[in-house]
Amino acid sequence: MSDKKQKQQKLKARLPRGFVDRTAADIHATNEMVAKIREVYERYGFDPIETPLFEYTDALGKFLPDSDRPNEGVFSLQDDDEQWMSLRYDLTAPLARHVAENFNEIQLPYRTYRAGYVFRNEKPGPGRFRQFMQFDADSVGAPGVQADAEMCMMMADTLEALGIKRGDYVIRVNNRKVLDGVLETIGLGGNDKATQRLNVLRAIDKLDKFGPDGVKLLLGEGRKDESGDFTKGVGLSEPQIVKLLNFIDILQTAETALGSHPLVQDPIPGLEIDGPKAVRGAIFNTLHDNFKDSPTGVEGVFELKQIWQLVETAGYGPDRIKIDPSVVRGLEYYTGPVYEAELTFDVTNEKGEKVVFGSVGGGGRYDGLVSRFMGQPVPATGFSIGVSRLMTALKNLGKLGQDEVLAPVLVTVMDGDVEAMGRYQRFAQALRNAGIRAEMYQGNWKKFGNQLKYADRRGSPIAIIQGGDERAQGVVQIKDLIEGKRLSGEISDNAEWREARVAQIVVPEAELVEKVREILAAQAEDRRRAKGV
Amino acid sequence: MSDKKQKQQKLKARLPRGFVDRTAADIHATNEMVAKIREVYERYGFDPIETPLFEYTDALGKFLPDSDRPNEGVFSLQDDDEQWMSLRYDLTAPLARHVAENFNEIQLPYRTYRAGYVFRNEKPGPGRFRQFMQFDADSVGAPGVQADAEMCMMMADTLEALGIKRGDYVIRVNNRKVLDGVLETIGLGGNDKATQRLNVLRAIDKLDKFGPDGVKLLLGEGRKDESGDFTKGVGLSEPQIVKLLNFIDILQTAETALGSHPLVQDPIPGLEIDGPKAVRGAIFNTLHDNFKDSPTGVEGVFELKQIWQLVETAGYGPDRIKIDPSVVRGLEYYTGPVYEAELTFDVTNEKGEKVVFGSVGGGGRYDGLVSRFMGQPVPATGFSIGVSRLMTALKNLGKLGQDEVLAPVLVTVMDGDVEAMGRYQRFAQALRNAGIRAEMYQGNWKKFGNQLKYADRRGSPIAIIQGGDERAQGVVQIKDLIEGKRLSGEISDNAEWREARVAQIVVPEAELVEKVREILAAQAEDRRRAKGV
Repeated sequence: MSDKKQKQQKLKARLPRGFVDRTAADIHATNEMVAKIREVYERYGFDPIETPLFEYTDALGKFLPDSDRPNEGVFSLQDDDEQWMSLRYDLTAPLARHVAENFNEIQLPYRTYRAGYVFRNEKPGPGRFRQFMQFDADSVGAPGVQADAEMCMMMADTLEALGIKRGDYVIRVNNRKVLDGVLETIGLGGNDKATQRLNVLRAIDKLDKFGPDGVKLLLGEGRKDESGDFTKGVGLSEPQIVKLLNFIDILQTAETALGSHPLVQDPIPGLEIDGPKAVRGAIFNTLHDNFKDSPTGVEGVFELKQIWQLVETAGYGPDRIKIDPSVVRGLEYYTGPVYEAELTFDVTNEKGEKVVFGSVGGGGRYDGLVSRFMGQPVPATGFSIGVSRLMTALKNLGKLGQDEVLAPVLVTVMDGDVEAMGRYQRFAQALRNAGIRAEMYQGNWKKFGNQLKYADRRGSPIAIIQGGDERAQGVVQIKDLIEGKRLSGEISDNAEWREARVAQIVVPEAELVEKVREILAAQAEDRRRAKGV
Repeated sequence: MSDKKQKQQKLKARLPRGFVDRTAADIHATNEMVAKIREVYERYGFDPIETPLFEYTDALGKFLPDSDRPNEGVFSLQDDDEQWMSLRYDLTAPLARHVAENFNEIQLPYRTYRAGYVFRNEKPGPGRFRQFMQFDADSVGAPGVQADAEMCMMMADTLEALGIKRGDYVIRVNNRKVLDGVLETIGLGGNDKATQRLNVLRAIDKLDKFGPDGVKLLLGEGRKDESGDFTKGVGLSEPQIVKLLNFIDILQTAETALGSHPLVQDPIPGLEIDGPKAVRGAIFNTLHDNFKDSPTGVEGVFELKQIWQLVETAGYGPDRIKIDPSVVRGLEYYTGPVYEAELTFDVTNEKGEKVVFGSVGGGGRYDGLVSRFMGQPVPATGFSIGVSRLMTALKNLGKLGQDEVLAPVLVTVMDGDVEAMGRYQRFAQALRNAGIRAEMYQGNWKKFGNQLKYADRRGSPIAIIQGGDERAQGVVQIKDLIEGKRLSGEISDNAEWREARVAQIVVPEAELVEKVREILAAQAEDRRRAKGV
C-alpha cells in the first residue's frame, strides 16, 4: 500500500502522445539528407529564410469565426494581451506573412527555402506524429507556369540527388483549374459553392476505395457501409453525377495516355511533333474540347499543356514528370498547378502487405495566400518535402547512414588521484587534438569491468589502459577492441591479415597517438575488406 | 472613412512580439557555427540526441501547485485529455525526462549533445527574444568532478575552434556548495530556508550595482532608491550581515589571487609545486579554514581545488579556465560545480558605452534532475551555449561569414513562347549540372529593366541573355555584372588585371558553361586580390 502510494508520488517520465525523441542515427541521417537537399536548392538559386514557430492565429488563416477558441488541427494559446497565437502547421502560411510584412524590402521574385518543424494538433496514430519536419522551397512573385515547371524539375533533381533512381519516383502534375472546371461545367462554380466543391472532391478521392458505384452514392443521396453507418451525400442530381463521372473517366484516360508513352530520350529536343508527343498533344486537345462550357477548365488544360512542353523541352520526360489530370490535392489555398512527388517502389507495411511507398511531398500555386494581407495580387508557387517520411524511404533503399560515425576511443580510469586523472585526461586531449574521437571514462571508475562493458556497448574501437606500474614507467596499454572481438570468433576474415595484428600492445606514452592512429587505420581497412568480400 | 474601414478589414501581417524571422546571412552563420561546435563535441566523444519541443508541464518541473494554470515563464496549453503541456524552456529538463524514460536501454555514462530552440514566455525587450537556440552537451551518470572539469575544457576548446583567441574569453568555475556553505555558516542552511537563500543570493548579485552599503540594506531591513521605491529586505541580523559580507570579501580576494597569476606555460607539467601554484594552493587552504563551521562549504572548496588541479594538469591554465568562488548563478537545479563562459573583450552597447561582452553560455552539475523521476541518484553535469548571443559575438570579431555564398547566375527571359522558355531553362539546368548556382528569371519578364534591376539587387555575378536573333544563330550573350560595376567606377583595382576582361561577350550555346566558369573564376581572383591589397 505505502509502496503504491510512493510510486504514485514519484513523477512519471513520459512524452506527450504523438511526440518522439530522435536517436543519434536519425539525427545523422537527417543532417545528411537535409544537406543534400539544401545543395540542390542552392544550385537552383534559392536562399534560406526562416520564420519562428509561432504566428498569430489569424495570420495562419485557420481561425474559426464561430468559436472563441481556434479550431482543432493547430496548437494555440493566448498571449498576455489576449491575442491568439498558434504553432505553425506548415511552412507556407508563415512565409506568406513574412513576405507581406517585409514587402517593401523584398526584391521579387523571391526565391527561398527553409527546413523546420511544424505541428498538427491531431489524434496521434502509428507513424502519425504531432511534430514533424518539412523542407520547403518557394518562388513568390512568379506569375508564370514556368515557375511551377521549375519546381517540378527541382523536386525530381532533389530525389535523384538523394540516390533515388529514375523510375523509382515520379512527379505528378495537375491543375486545380481542371477540377474546378469540371465542377463549373456541372454548375458548381462561384464562391458560395466552395464547401460543396470541397465535398465533391473528397468523394472523388474515394474512387479507389469505394469504386464508381460507391462514389455515385456519396455524390448523391449518401452511402451506408457494411456496418450500417450512413455518410451523408453531397446531393447532386443524377445528370450532374453522370456528367461528373464521365469527366473523371476522360481525365483518367488522359492520365493513362500521357503517362504510358515511352520516354523521349533526346536530351535537348526542339519542339518538332514526333510520335508520342503528337499523341500527348492530341490528348490535350481532347481535354480542351470537353471544357467548352468552362473558361476555368480551358485555362487549366492550357497551363498543363504548357508545363508539359516546358519540362519536355528541358529534357524531363514522363518517366520523371508526368501530367496527371486526375490528381486531387486537399489543401484549400491552391489556385493553379499542383504537383506531388511519389515514390513508386513497393514496401511492406505493418500488416505485411506490399504497397507503393507513395507521396513524400508536394505543393502547388497559391496566388491568394500573400495577397490576403495586401491590396495587390502576389502570385506564388512552392512545395514541401516531408523529411521524416522521405528519410524512412531512403532507409528502406539503404541510401542513408553511409557516413559512418566511429565510436570514441575510451581512456579507462585505473586510479582516482589527481595526478593519474590528469594524465588520463591528457591522453584523451592528445587524441582529440589529433582529430580522433576520444573520451575518458566518466562513470564510477572503481569497477573496471563496468568500463569494459561500457566500451563494448558503446562500440569503442580501442581502450587505453594505464595502471600505477605503467605510469611509473611512462608507458600505456592499447587494447584493440575490434581485434579482440574478432579473435573471439565474432569476425572471421582473411587469415593473413589477421596475423598481422595483435589485440593488445604496450607503448611509451609519447607514441600513444601514432599507435592509435595505426590501429584505427587497420580497423578501417578491415571494414573495407569485409564489405569487399 | 471607408478607406479606413477597408484597411481595418485587411489582415495585418505581423509577428507576435518577441519573435523574429531569420535572414539568409544569419542562417548560414548559424549553420557554420553549429557545425564547428558539433565537431568539437563529437571529438570529445559525445553523440547527438534530440527531444521534441513539447513536454508535459510537470516533467519540465515548472508547475505551480497553487494555480490551475502553469506559471509564467513557459508557454503552456492543455491537451485534449486535459493534461498540461509546455514548450521546453531549456534543453536540460527534457534530457532528464528522456534519460529517466529510457533508463533501462541507456548505457551510463551517457554523453550526448543537442542544438534546438527553447521558448520563454517573458516580456520581450531589445535583444530579448521568446524563441532562441541553445546548444547543449551533457554527461549523465558521471559522479566525479573530472566530468565537470572536462565540460570546462570542452567549452574552452569550443570557443577557440570558433576562432575566439585565448585571452578573449575565460571559463569561470565556482561551486554551489561554496555559496551554500557561506549561508550555512550564518545559519541559513536547511530545506525550509531555500527561498531566503535565493533572496540573499539575489542581493549579493547586486554588489556591482549598489555597492556594499546598498547590499547591506537589501540583506537587512530593505532599501529605498532615489525615486522613493522601497525594496523589501531579506531581514538578516547585523551579525549575520557582517559575517556574510566578510565572507564575500574573502571570496573576492581569492578570485583576484587565483586569476591574476601568470600562466603556467609548460603544456604537460607534473604536479611539482612551483611559484604561482603554491600561491593558489595556499588560497584554497585559506578558503577551507574559513569554512570550519560548514561541511557543505568544505566540500565545495575541496571540489573546486580538484577541478583546478585537473584542468591545470591537462594544461589549461587560468587564462582559459579560472576558479572564481564569487560567481553566482541563478538556476535552482544546480547542486555542485557551476561554470560560465565569458567573452572578455569590449563591445559598444546601444548607448554607445564600452562594455565587456559577457556570458555566452554556462552550466553545472544537476544531480537531482533525473532522480526526480527515479528511485535512485543519477548524477549529471552539462552546459548550454546561447547560439544567437555567441553568433553576435563572432560577428563582432569578424569570425563568421567567411564561407561566402555567391548569388546565382541569372538567365534572363527575352521571349515568352515555349520554345524560348525551354531554352532558357536548359541554360539554367546546364549551369546547375556543372555545380554553378543559376536561375531563370521567374517574375514578369516583359520589362527587361526589371530583370537587370533584380540581378543588381540580388548581386547576381553574371546575366545570360538570348534574343530571337541570337537564338536563330545558336549563340548567347554573357554579361559580367561585377565587371560592369567595376567599369562604372565602383571598384578600382590593378589596371593590368582590368584590361584582361570584358564586360560582355557572345559565345556559341555549347560554350556557355565553360565561359561562365571562366568569368566566375576571374571574379573570384578579383575578390582575392581586393582582400590582399
